[in-house]
Amino acid sequence: MASAERGSSGPLCLLLLLLASSALALKPASARRGSPGTSHRSRRAPDYRTLYYPQKIDHFGFDEDFTFKQRYLLADKHWNENGGPILFYAGNEGDIDLFCNNTGFMWDVAEEFQAMLVFAEHRYYGESLPFGEESYADSKRLNYLTSEQALADFAVLIRYLKATIPGAKDSAVIAIGGSYGGMLAAWLRMKYPDVVVGALAASAPIWQFEDLVPCDAFYDIVTNDFHKSGEGCSESVSKSWNAINNLSAKAYGRQWLSKTFHLCSPLQNKEDVLYFKAWLGETWVNLAMVNYPYEADFLQPLPAWPIQVVCKFLNDPSLDDKALLKNIFKAVNVYYNYTGNTQCLNISQAATVSLGDRGWSYQACTEMVMPICSNGIKDMFEPLPWDFKSYADDCFKQWGVIPRLTWITTEFGGKNISSHSNIVFSNGGLDPWSAGGVHKNITDTLVSIFIPEGAHHLDLRSKHADDPVSVVRARQLEVKYMKQWIKKTNTAL
Amino acid sequence: MASAERGSSGPLCLLLLLLASSALALKPASARRGSPGTSHRSRRAPDYRTLYYPQKIDHFGFDEDFTFKQRYLLADKHWNENGGPILFYAGNEGDIDLFCNNTGFMWDVAEEFQAMLVFAEHRYYGESLPFGEESYADSKRLNYLTSEQALADFAVLIRYLKATIPGAKDSAVIAIGGSYGGMLAAWLRMKYPDVVVGALAASAPIWQFEDLVPCDAFYDIVTNDFHKSGEGCSESVSKSWNAINNLSAKAYGRQWLSKTFHLCSPLQNKEDVLYFKAWLGETWVNLAMVNYPYEADFLQPLPAWPIQVVCKFLNDPSLDDKALLKNIFKAVNVYYNYTGNTQCLNISQAATVSLGDRGWSYQACTEMVMPICSNGIKDMFEPLPWDFKSYADDCFKQWGVIPRLTWITTEFGGKNISSHSNIVFSNGGLDPWSAGGVHKNITDTLVSIFIPEGAHHLDLRSKHADDPVSVVRARQLEVKYMKQWIKKTNTAL
Repeated sequence: MASAERGSSGPLCLLLLLLASSALALKPASARRGSPGTSHRSRRAPDYRTLYYPQKIDHFGFDEDFTFKQRYLLADKHWNENGGPILFYAGNEGDIDLFCNNTGFMWDVAEEFQAMLVFAEHRYYGESLPFGEESYADSKRLNYLTSEQALADFAVLIRYLKATIPGAKDSAVIAIGGSYGGMLAAWLRMKYPDVVVGALAASAPIWQFEDLVPCDAFYDIVTNDFHKSGEGCSESVSKSWNAINNLSAKAYGRQWLSKTFHLCSPLQNKEDVLYFKAWLGETWVNLAMVNYPYEADFLQPLPAWPIQVVCKFLNDPSLDDKALLKNIFKAVNVYYNYTGNTQCLNISQAATVSLGDRGWSYQACTEMVMPICSNGIKDMFEPLPWDFKSYADDCFKQWGVIPRLTWITTEFGGKNISSHSNIVFSNGGLDPWSAGGVHKNITDTLVSIFIPEGAHHLDLRSKHADDPVSVVRARQLEVKYMKQWIKKTNTAL
Repeated sequence: MASAERGSSGPLCLLLLLLASSALALKPASARRGSPGTSHRSRRAPDYRTLYYPQKIDHFGFDEDFTFKQRYLLADKHWNENGGPILFYAGNEGDIDLFCNNTGFMWDVAEEFQAMLVFAEHRYYGESLPFGEESYADSKRLNYLTSEQALADFAVLIRYLKATIPGAKDSAVIAIGGSYGGMLAAWLRMKYPDVVVGALAASAPIWQFEDLVPCDAFYDIVTNDFHKSGEGCSESVSKSWNAINNLSAKAYGRQWLSKTFHLCSPLQNKEDVLYFKAWLGETWVNLAMVNYPYEADFLQPLPAWPIQVVCKFLNDPSLDDKALLKNIFKAVNVYYNYTGNTQCLNISQAATVSLGDRGWSYQACTEMVMPICSNGIKDMFEPLPWDFKSYADDCFKQWGVIPRLTWITTEFGGKNISSHSNIVFSNGGLDPWSAGGVHKNITDTLVSIFIPEGAHHLDLRSKHADDPVSVVRARQLEVKYMKQWIKKTNTAL
């Protein structure tokens, strides 16, 4: 299982590339690369085969008729070969191994469901590159990196699997995914309901588009996580921006910051400081996403309830600038150096060397335009209004494309999804991405599950002794719904 | 209303371009051009505005970001400006005026529904040309001629209309279409159920794909129409092919045929004879499609129950070759010369000078691969097996593209459509395209209406004193379902 080491930075970290700020939008993600942390799955010696399917590069046009090899992982140890169900992970913006490793839920329930597990890699990520190493060469070759093409890949692949695997012809297929993968799982059910009988969409911000939710809700949740995790904590972060601004105005202050934060490269000018602050902001957001109740290493190796650990250093917002920022360093050091092996902190550490980051940046600059803003009053961040014009300009500079603000809501129905069925939307109360999630039952078969103590798709992770009751109960409910969908399918045969 | 004169050959005639035979597939449609016949709508002095909307040329990719002007017709004479419904015609493969003219049903019910009527032109037809006169120049520019792009156009346009027309924000929109337009109406409801509350899909052969229906059912229906319309009639047609083969083997015979059939250009070689036979075959098929109970001029000006008129000349199959073929000429002359003004019959008369024909030929060579075959035993045609290889080869020669046999069933679910809702599939018992239609109620809200005496989407035509009871009843049912959908929508507001 090489992927954890390979450095994909995880589904949500990547999502962050599109944060409202154009600086952030163009800034590399901040997750550290190369940390050798033990992934949960790698302890299991996972038993699956790696396979490839020749997909049309363009499902929606005929001028480009070539195919590429889509990677998928298949585990059938527990599969009932007489029509047992297929749990299908709708791969998101990264190496499929990463999601295979971090979706322990599927492995945990495989035996109970007598299910085959399939993890399908999203085109343009991992090994599934339509034009090989040239896939990101220009906007012409990137043209087939869209959610619609990815969904068509999944539909075609599932049809192929059912047609060719003996015993799978009448198998019920359930789509499962987290984050963008959860969006894809839900959309797969919406657009191809004959292909999947239902979908588990975990932490899927399908409504983080246009004006469907307030753009400031995202940062409010991050702020609240810090607010609840220690006295003075969110206030300390809130005050840190001015402290940085004060200090960084002069060369001496930038030197002091660089040294205090053990930066690998010193801050030399105002632009560096902007990146530094964006990097700090991403750190707080990432912490909110992976604020799991036990030691884990999804984006970074981290202790249990990492924000509580972080907040221990941030209990006194009344300190002067330097004392406050020294504490801020100790706090971010929890995130970047939990193992104690990190020599220096690199604010361009998560530079877009990983295909995943680049791919998501392109997607955020085309279809996945998610308005996010901060106001600096309700939240602990510097004010940053949502500015589509500036966002679009940056996208054009970076990729030569113009984002389409209203396309996703047109294509996938926005909030008017009540005529669909069999989708579970789960969201965690600690997860900033829950701001764009579905939080109410829309119909009897379009249901919402809320996990107050959950960070980003905690429910998809392996069961753990320290799981809060809410996630245990959520998984039970999810299993119940999935069984209903399967039962209904098999009865209908 | 210039379109009837302009020469689009009608929705189903165009569909015929893809008949199983590669000769037929590449042969121009046979509807006569330029016949000035009075269209039903033109008698009404239709009251609508012609408008244009800038559509993205490529909804599913970002490299091509330009727009084109999609034409649509809007009639709001009867519209209740306080949220009245919108009846939306999903334009098919031709000039939108043609469908506006031949969908009298919508005009007939507009007042009762207090509805706005919108007729949206399908991209690459009529005036809605993405690259102007160059739209058909090569496979690169034709790349955006797909049903998915057309559906996206419709969804975007409806969203725009609802957002910009005062009072339309909460209007229920119902998609209506016949033939390929009926397929689009059904698919629009399936793929964009938030955009249209329901669909009336008249004579929509959504199952004429892959192996969903027997490929020979289409010609069986044509044969049966002739069989029922006069003694010896289908037998006469059946025998005519050998008679032609016998005579056309020699130059003298070809001369005789050319003269007897008043052909504009004489048959000079075997290839001409193949075209001649394909043209005859299309004539019989077209007659079956427009076998309406009253004088009409959808594909040609024709008498009431035209096949009965045709069959009066074909009551003696025992005649010798020449006598039989003289009668065949009299029969086809009913189709091509009902007005008595035709000087000669042109077997390339419906040559692909019309954009409509060319567009459908391209669509048939890409997505719309509809297997159709004849066996010469159950049907009155020469045996012609379904040969995808040969079909694909011809497509590549003609358009430089490779048809995808299994794509439409993957994209639109094949026969597994039960999770959708609010679609009425109507089919006529006389219509060969009913072979690929939906003939049973799938659920309470996916219903089938059968019109035994109906030819191709007779129900969409204006009401007429000579309408059979079955079509009157069908329209009543359609109105009932449409009212249910609207009522449910308005209640849900």
